[in-house]
Amino acid sequence: MTHMMNDTIAAIATPPGIGGIAIIRISGPNAWNAVKHIFKSDISNTAPESHHACHGWIMNGKEPVDEVLLTWFEAPNSYTGEEVVEVSGHGGPLICQCILDLLLNHGIRTAEPGEFTKRAFLNGKLDLNQAEAVADLIHAKTEYARRVAAYQLEGRLSERITTIRDTLIRNCSLLELELDFGEEDVEFASRNDLKSGLISIQKSLNELLSTFNRGRVCRDGIRLVIAGRPNVGKSSLLNRLIEKERAIVTDVPGTTRDTIEEMLDIEGVLFVITDTAGLRSESGLVEKEGIRRTYAALNAADMIIWMTDASQPWLPEDENLLLSVRQAQVPCFYTVNKIDLKPHPDISRLTQGIPNQDILKISALTGQGIDTLIQKLKSTALSGDVPHEGETLITRARHAEAVRSALNHVQSAQDSIKKNMSQEFIALDLRGALEALGCITGQTTPDDILNQIFSEFCIGK
Amino acid sequence: MTHMMNDTIAAIATPPGIGGIAIIRISGPNAWNAVKHIFKSDISNTAPESHHACHGWIMNGKEPVDEVLLTWFEAPNSYTGEEVVEVSGHGGPLICQCILDLLLNHGIRTAEPGEFTKRAFLNGKLDLNQAEAVADLIHAKTEYARRVAAYQLEGRLSERITTIRDTLIRNCSLLELELDFGEEDVEFASRNDLKSGLISIQKSLNELLSTFNRGRVCRDGIRLVIAGRPNVGKSSLLNRLIEKERAIVTDVPGTTRDTIEEMLDIEGVLFVITDTAGLRSESGLVEKEGIRRTYAALNAADMIIWMTDASQPWLPEDENLLLSVRQAQVPCFYTVNKIDLKPHPDISRLTQGIPNQDILKISALTGQGIDTLIQKLKSTALSGDVPHEGETLITRARHAEAVRSALNHVQSAQDSIKKNMSQEFIALDLRGALEALGCITGQTTPDDILNQIFSEFCIGK
Repeated sequence: MTHMMNDTIAAIATPPGIGGIAIIRISGPNAWNAVKHIFKSDISNTAPESHHACHGWIMNGKEPVDEVLLTWFEAPNSYTGEEVVEVSGHGGPLICQCILDLLLNHGIRTAEPGEFTKRAFLNGKLDLNQAEAVADLIHAKTEYARRVAAYQLEGRLSERITTIRDTLIRNCSLLELELDFGEEDVEFASRNDLKSGLISIQKSLNELLSTFNRGRVCRDGIRLVIAGRPNVGKSSLLNRLIEKERAIVTDVPGTTRDTIEEMLDIEGVLFVITDTAGLRSESGLVEKEGIRRTYAALNAADMIIWMTDASQPWLPEDENLLLSVRQAQVPCFYTVNKIDLKPHPDISRLTQGIPNQDILKISALTGQGIDTLIQKLKSTALSGDVPHEGETLITRARHAEAVRSALNHVQSAQDSIKKNMSQEFIALDLRGALEALGCITGQTTPDDILNQIFSEFCIGK
Repeated sequence: MTHMMNDTIAAIATPPGIGGIAIIRISGPNAWNAVKHIFKSDISNTAPESHHACHGWIMNGKEPVDEVLLTWFEAPNSYTGEEVVEVSGHGGPLICQCILDLLLNHGIRTAEPGEFTKRAFLNGKLDLNQAEAVADLIHAKTEYARRVAAYQLEGRLSERITTIRDTLIRNCSLLELELDFGEEDVEFASRNDLKSGLISIQKSLNELLSTFNRGRVCRDGIRLVIAGRPNVGKSSLLNRLIEKERAIVTDVPGTTRDTIEEMLDIEGVLFVITDTAGLRSESGLVEKEGIRRTYAALNAADMIIWMTDASQPWLPEDENLLLSVRQAQVPCFYTVNKIDLKPHPDISRLTQGIPNQDILKISALTGQGIDTLIQKLKSTALSGDVPHEGETLITRARHAEAVRSALNHVQSAQDSIKKNMSQEFIALDLRGALEALGCITGQTTPDDILNQIFSEFCIGK
């Protein structure tokens, strides 16, 4: 059942910039019809064999534009499920633009972000969760993220969800059958089987939900804030971490980035680090605004490194920051920096009230204690639990929300059974759970959410 | 005659960054042997059909890495002339790196910049001039540059050179045959035919050489310097030009760029503009150094815009700069800026000695006169002569040098004929011309020059 669109779309599918090869992808019923007007093949101008790469030239009238390989994919055996042509040319921005312009002259329109994958989804080539995995795979910033996304693209999460949905559908149908025989008081769905079935579903869903923390860390990273009064060495620590791991996650064109954030890949785990020193020294920021932003950052943090200076006297600001850090109720690492210098007598006062074993003595300058800090950051990020080989993780808040909603419905269904309520109440909740889970794989996802999901893709995907 | 390399190379062939598709290209005798270890096809694991795109997964052991299309090209029907595999996966940097790492584990090494194209050249898939055209096409910054490169890739310049070389070879052979019969005083090559042949070659070479100025402008752009004393409005003019043309040529990762240069595409012609205002305001530059750099920029310029301020009194600095500009002996546009303000009585003194018709009155603020300036810039850049449809241009200094050298040899051969000198002298010069022209197409290019040419390619090409 192929969902055919009337119009044909095209976009440059490879990353922008200079490279050896660039690909222009065209999808829709007119793909080959449009391309054949601008393609001069070595062989002939009849439609090529599906999946076969043909050598030739893209021509603008009599003018050669680029020497290319052209691969035609017959519907439905293509990425989108529609007729697709991929033109593989030399990787120069002007060549790509020129080929694209020629196509637009032949009744093809520019693809919107994610439109190819959206068509693939609508044509049943992949489900919504797999489509999201495509985006996650492309944008993966760490090895963990890449691996989790690859498993999702392969369909692991979809399989889990489908298995649960199948059980729900079976039970639902039986209950609805009872409704059809309403007056006769038959019981197609044994209440005991139903109960044990729901318990097993509940267990599966809870297991999935429990992976969300690890999944979120894999996909989005940990928001880590380094807090401390001026000159305790926050920027030095950040630089030390960057140097130690040699792996700042690079900027990607098109993503917005707050200038005071650094993304750091610490042994495979992504940390989005806010250096609150930057919050203050930012030009034009008055002291008060800097402090306000520091507290906002603390409130949004997943983890905090509180830092003080072993060589300096106690200041009320240390105390104030410490109080705020504790209010944030997220894991905090209490670091005493500059232990390479002569310690100030106030040192015990600086760390008053913090259990001794929680205090990390470090020197951002010499690197002392940094490895310990890195290990603690990493193990806390994953709650001491590295995603294991092939584990199916929930990585998106949208999915976690759906699972939570399904769990509520399942719980409610169980309550109804306990209270001996009639089939329709139970069936209603099972339908609710089904619908919630269907949002993950796309069967029941509302159009506006679909649109939003695909609009976050890059153009050409 | 395929020139087989023993080792197999691989590289990411698409531009770096985020995109829908990325391609890893593998070339060499082990291409398929290595790939098959990490590729799980839908169908089977036997060697696929040449040029046929197969769907499957790249696997790291049991772990899925990416869903890909794989196309195998049987030697010699590939870009390099060797066995080639192209893996087309999702365009994420980490995926590409992961696939590349897996390949490196299977005895494949990373390709050097331009190594694929170098192998293509060594295997006779394209000549050196066409290989250079590949690089020019990818790096083309304007439409003109792109078109000229496409014609060169198609082989237009190579054909011209080959025709000339064929005539030279024919004449050379006849002369060398005479040498073999040295004692017998035969004349296989009629001196009259030889003379007219050389005249015709000379004409062809001169025609080619005369395109070098247009070709160089197409490929490398015009070095334009805006000179004038502080505050006459140099930066405003630059901004106005940028706004007018809305086409700053964007930076490309990996190219070094002087921070005080802007590249601007003015109606298809590339201008590399040095704003000498930037030379002065650059932090840490003392006034003297700024002035030194301004004069250095003037000396390197292809064109100069000299600018003065209509609203300000004459200053000795105007005069000094004007003198230097005239010494540079390149086309100069004398602009009087700020004509929107009340003119200062000194205005005639400011432009003293400049013919009236050469003075352009402009306002960078209101835009007055800017269109005229743009038209003058463009027509002067192309010497009033736009490259016409399909014209074969010489774009590289290396090629112009080779043509000049060939011309010298041809002239010398003509002189020898005139002086009735013996065959060997004429033949020697014809050989010299042949060798010079062979440097363009690659038959006689020394290894170090070849290496240098290919090292300027990007990786993956």
